[in-house]
Amino acid sequence: MQKLESPSCFIGINNKDFISFGSGQPDLEPPEPVFNIIQQLTKGWKFQYGLVQGQPELREALSRYHQNLKIKPDNFIITNGSSEAIDLALRILINPGDYIVMLKPFYYSYPHYVKINKGRPVYCSTNGSQVDLEEFEFILKSYHPKAFILNSPGNPTGAVFKPSTIKSLIRLCKNYNVYVISDEVYSKLIYEGEHYSPRGDNIIGINSFSKTFSMCGLRVGYAYSTNDELIKKMIEIKTHTSMNTNTLVQEMALQAINTPQNYIRKQFKVWKERRDYIYEKLMDMGLSLGNPQGAFYVLPKIKNPDRAVSKLFFDYKTITYKGEWFGAPGHIRLSYALDLEKIKEGLKRIEAYLKTCNI
Amino acid sequence: MQKLESPSCFIGINNKDFISFGSGQPDLEPPEPVFNIIQQLTKGWKFQYGLVQGQPELREALSRYHQNLKIKPDNFIITNGSSEAIDLALRILINPGDYIVMLKPFYYSYPHYVKINKGRPVYCSTNGSQVDLEEFEFILKSYHPKAFILNSPGNPTGAVFKPSTIKSLIRLCKNYNVYVISDEVYSKLIYEGEHYSPRGDNIIGINSFSKTFSMCGLRVGYAYSTNDELIKKMIEIKTHTSMNTNTLVQEMALQAINTPQNYIRKQFKVWKERRDYIYEKLMDMGLSLGNPQGAFYVLPKIKNPDRAVSKLFFDYKTITYKGEWFGAPGHIRLSYALDLEKIKEGLKRIEAYLKTCNI
Repeated sequence: MQKLESPSCFIGINNKDFISFGSGQPDLEPPEPVFNIIQQLTKGWKFQYGLVQGQPELREALSRYHQNLKIKPDNFIITNGSSEAIDLALRILINPGDYIVMLKPFYYSYPHYVKINKGRPVYCSTNGSQVDLEEFEFILKSYHPKAFILNSPGNPTGAVFKPSTIKSLIRLCKNYNVYVISDEVYSKLIYEGEHYSPRGDNIIGINSFSKTFSMCGLRVGYAYSTNDELIKKMIEIKTHTSMNTNTLVQEMALQAINTPQNYIRKQFKVWKERRDYIYEKLMDMGLSLGNPQGAFYVLPKIKNPDRAVSKLFFDYKTITYKGEWFGAPGHIRLSYALDLEKIKEGLKRIEAYLKTCNI
Repeated sequence: MQKLESPSCFIGINNKDFISFGSGQPDLEPPEPVFNIIQQLTKGWKFQYGLVQGQPELREALSRYHQNLKIKPDNFIITNGSSEAIDLALRILINPGDYIVMLKPFYYSYPHYVKINKGRPVYCSTNGSQVDLEEFEFILKSYHPKAFILNSPGNPTGAVFKPSTIKSLIRLCKNYNVYVISDEVYSKLIYEGEHYSPRGDNIIGINSFSKTFSMCGLRVGYAYSTNDELIKKMIEIKTHTSMNTNTLVQEMALQAINTPQNYIRKQFKVWKERRDYIYEKLMDMGLSLGNPQGAFYVLPKIKNPDRAVSKLFFDYKTITYKGEWFGAPGHIRLSYALDLEKIKEGLKRIEAYLKTCNI
């Protein structure tokens, strides 16, 4: 039997018999104006280079969209998804050997990013949306990390950290001269609690069009900071490593961001319905899990997750991810970014599997 | 007077009075099918993640397009322009401090790429398309570089290296265990001589849709290698640092690559006419320069290039690049990727400037 060692093992499974609770990508439709704009794209348009930093109109729209943060258009950089934004942030910050602190569980890619950039990840444990501030301070004091990666709402837990918790973490980072990379790609997907974006010259905010506007495959994300120097350094690197982000999808992103809030509200209803369903159903099955306050993941505890993920895949045609890939051994992660009918069918399969073993 | 220190100084100059011999981006139109495909993109399409390695159909088309190289579809990776392809190649090859050898003059970004990835550039001089193989071997022997970046046809010289020269360089690299990154983005733009793509398991080939199909701003490039391990490592990094290349433009690229060869032939005629014109005119002005065999750049010698680039910009509204940015002090670089009328007007301005000084 093939060993399942990372989310990549499931790549290219297109068989319609499979139900995938794997990849976190919305199945919903992007806003209609995103399509309208490309219908206007007729012969005669030219595809010359755009600004490395991103098209001015899109950066102006983002400045308005995040008006509470008071970020000037020149303090945004448009990237190939939030992935490139986080990578650029780490590229400018990490010197080989530098520590980067993150909360555990963490988004699967974080430790990889750090290692690719020759840094060393260090982890601070969490309990749902609780962080032990003493442990966090102890890490800052002992490891002198260069940066802290914050992710609220968080993948894979769905935890939304309280504004007061975030403020305390940021204050400690400030005290210990630690930069903060605040990955907020799920900021519009909060069921309980409220979103808080940290502020300050040591902060690089990260966001994306992928989750909010169902545009994953188009790869448009962005970073911002009130610290001119950080943005300038990120642009300097991107000038060589990928140049401008695709100009066509920046046009589409501009349409998306100008979409009436109604779109986001409608989508949100769909997400909440799915969350309520999957949470209750998994509880009914006797699994132990936290009720996600945001994003679209659940992280139930399970006995022998290796066996569960493998059996579910090979015998039940159901894709789930091992919690250990996210720093949460003893769990599996399920994305509920798929329609309710599929969720129902997938949960039936999980239930059937669970009956064969001792939960 | 503002100091002009890099090509970035000219970014955002949209004033129509300016003539730009700066950035190397075709002003021509992409093939028509590129537009047709997006007209078919209507509400209901979903923008979910694609494969990190790139869409299978596009990789299959590339395998056929480069059939003489016998590269399997699985040995291609589609990237955000050739920029990301080169960056990924260097990311998998460089350990901090490693030397990377390149020919001088070089494409502006090469030393930056190397430094961003914590490597050290080392240069081997050239004379047009002549390389001193003894000097090259001496460098391999003394510096033990990790990789060699080859660029033929070359930017900024337009030099096309003879197949025999390339074979000798590659043989030396093989002997000294040096990887080769072969940047061939101008392979379809050769006026004299022939293109030769090096082969072997130490080679990573780089190409792009930007120059051949006038799609710079869309950012679609690719890398390939017969060495599975190298491609696998590049995919591993891209999985985190940018994920799939935009799926929409991959559809457009697929249309472009299936365009009848007639498109490339028609475009080529335009390029050749421009090349012939600019070369002769600059010679007539008394400047000394090589006749470019490929790409779309000329690199005339000029006295006091700092003054020339600055005066031309501020007093004559004409953008040129300093040769020193490309490792060619004493020269200026002119891209002729603009229409003939603009080339004529720009050359008039350069002529007027030259009259004010001693060439």
